[in-house]
Amino acid sequence: MTSGADAHILVTYAVTDSDPAAVAEAIRVEQTIEFPVDLAPTWIQDTVVGTVVAIHDDTIVISYDPRTVGGDLVQLLNLIWGNVSLFPGVRVKDLSLPPSITGMVRGPRFGVQGIRELLDAPARPIVTTALKPMGRSTAELAADAVILASAGFDLIKDDHGLANQPWAPWLERVQHVSAAVVDAAERSGSKSRYMPVLNVPTAQIHDAAYAAKAAGAGALLVLPGISGFDAMRALAEDDDLALPIMSHPSFLGSHMVNRTQGIDHGILLGTIMRLAGADMSVFPNLGGRFSFSAQECLDIRDRCASELGGLAPIFPSPGGGMSLERIPEMIDFYGHDVALLIGGALHRGDLRANAEAMMNAVRAS
Amino acid sequence: MTSGADAHILVTYAVTDSDPAAVAEAIRVEQTIEFPVDLAPTWIQDTVVGTVVAIHDDTIVISYDPRTVGGDLVQLLNLIWGNVSLFPGVRVKDLSLPPSITGMVRGPRFGVQGIRELLDAPARPIVTTALKPMGRSTAELAADAVILASAGFDLIKDDHGLANQPWAPWLERVQHVSAAVVDAAERSGSKSRYMPVLNVPTAQIHDAAYAAKAAGAGALLVLPGISGFDAMRALAEDDDLALPIMSHPSFLGSHMVNRTQGIDHGILLGTIMRLAGADMSVFPNLGGRFSFSAQECLDIRDRCASELGGLAPIFPSPGGGMSLERIPEMIDFYGHDVALLIGGALHRGDLRANAEAMMNAVRAS
Repeated sequence: MTSGADAHILVTYAVTDSDPAAVAEAIRVEQTIEFPVDLAPTWIQDTVVGTVVAIHDDTIVISYDPRTVGGDLVQLLNLIWGNVSLFPGVRVKDLSLPPSITGMVRGPRFGVQGIRELLDAPARPIVTTALKPMGRSTAELAADAVILASAGFDLIKDDHGLANQPWAPWLERVQHVSAAVVDAAERSGSKSRYMPVLNVPTAQIHDAAYAAKAAGAGALLVLPGISGFDAMRALAEDDDLALPIMSHPSFLGSHMVNRTQGIDHGILLGTIMRLAGADMSVFPNLGGRFSFSAQECLDIRDRCASELGGLAPIFPSPGGGMSLERIPEMIDFYGHDVALLIGGALHRGDLRANAEAMMNAVRAS
Repeated sequence: MTSGADAHILVTYAVTDSDPAAVAEAIRVEQTIEFPVDLAPTWIQDTVVGTVVAIHDDTIVISYDPRTVGGDLVQLLNLIWGNVSLFPGVRVKDLSLPPSITGMVRGPRFGVQGIRELLDAPARPIVTTALKPMGRSTAELAADAVILASAGFDLIKDDHGLANQPWAPWLERVQHVSAAVVDAAERSGSKSRYMPVLNVPTAQIHDAAYAAKAAGAGALLVLPGISGFDAMRALAEDDDLALPIMSHPSFLGSHMVNRTQGIDHGILLGTIMRLAGADMSVFPNLGGRFSFSAQECLDIRDRCASELGGLAPIFPSPGGGMSLERIPEMIDFYGHDVALLIGGALHRGDLRANAEAMMNAVRAS
């Protein structure tokens, strides 16, 4: 076991509309013993209860002994944000994790470098898109997938809302589209991979991932806001599965969009997604249908790559209402270590022509 | 397949600081096809895309064909709150679910009536408490559990932050405390049950639940904000496990505490917890360390019992900073169908005397 502040977990919170010192005192207890401090043995007060290590204006920093986590990602999440998620006006702004904590997880299996090798794309942005819309049949979705794979799209994912609807049931879709993409990639010489969504009953997620792999799928789309971050971690750490993972922010928005409460965008979609094993993290790009600001998007980008106990950097994957015309601007904004995600706009006009134009735009970048 | 509005899913949202009609139009597409509506085939526009069925002031109601859910709770959650969770100023206010949706799940296995029978408590409030604080050894926690079981506490749960810390490792704790509570209940003639927390790695949650049952545990505490709602549902629906489940709101706060964004307290902690199989739903009582208002607490209580496709009503379980003195007021406020949760305050003074006083107060109610 470690001791000394540099081996502790540090969580930085911003406090709004409350006394920061009082909130700090509440958090250090709430997130650990949930018990009147004066009734706890002295060693528990000193060791198990968090310590307020800084209060600067509205920013507080709490330090925790890594033993409070007990070695599991689930309890790390509970320590950082379990009960305090119920406090109004408190927001996670930064995390500092010692090696004993980052070492609990494998993190991203592929990361930026591994994904680039798999896709034979040593430097350019990765290009991804989604099979849409819900309601189309497996055959129709597979036909689009063939066009997209032939155009050289790197990753062709299920729209995240495709589940097990009767129009294109999950297993049927995954088997047919996997085979179609494998075939189209072979014919065209591309490295295209199909990425089915694993928004399946949680107890079936492992078997579904294996069924997808057996069918020829080349990556997995996971919704940790619904399946849980730890379910994604287990998939990422499975040596026999060994498929790239893209995370999707479904059901996670409330943690971020209320600016004085929740978890900073970069912490949740960068740091925590990496801890939970995502190789690529989807988020709504600025200027699309959602609300993320330029600064929030850059924060996600930065936390996808910043030092995190030696865990691999991952691709930020901005999407949501993106158009072909914005590609140069997006590359300018995010840099080349980005997985561009473009969806419905490809379908306005001719899909094949649009897909080829997009690949050309990226290759020219 | 069904047709007609009465067989559809209705989701009511409140919209703040945006044009309700524009938000309604965005949601009905975002939550289904995520695709330019004009590019979708007409039948998909008419059937798969949601329909705006009402706009009254800032309140909008969207109707969805139940086929968009594909039979799974995970996709129901995604339909109601997946991407729209990323919209600022949008909040789920009501859900109306047709039989085809409520029929997907078993819901609470025990519910109010089943829990009352198990605990031989036909009419009074159920009395629960937590083993605390983190840092104490298994032997110390087990000793407290014996006192609490001997005093007749119905359910003695792990504090939700007890995970697999070195001071009282999960399996050691669950085995020793289970045995201690079974023994104390036999000796005292009480029906006390120990309820370990299942904040374990998600892929191990099923095995952990069985290990707990094998050790003699009599109920399970689940954190669906971390493990996922569907992991809890699977535990609830497991006929061989068949243990009562209490849900804890850890990590779920941001969905509720920002009053113009998120999901109404009663919908999340009442309706959704019931769909996901909880028999008892923990939440912070008004006047404790947290922020829930009287109206929000009553909304949770009401949604724990309101009509929901024939699913069993469940116990609201208010806790958090509760004291012995507030018991009569709480019974007055919530009624007798409540699982009172009292924690640290029992430890101020003599635990045995306090525990007996609490049971007497409840029996006198």
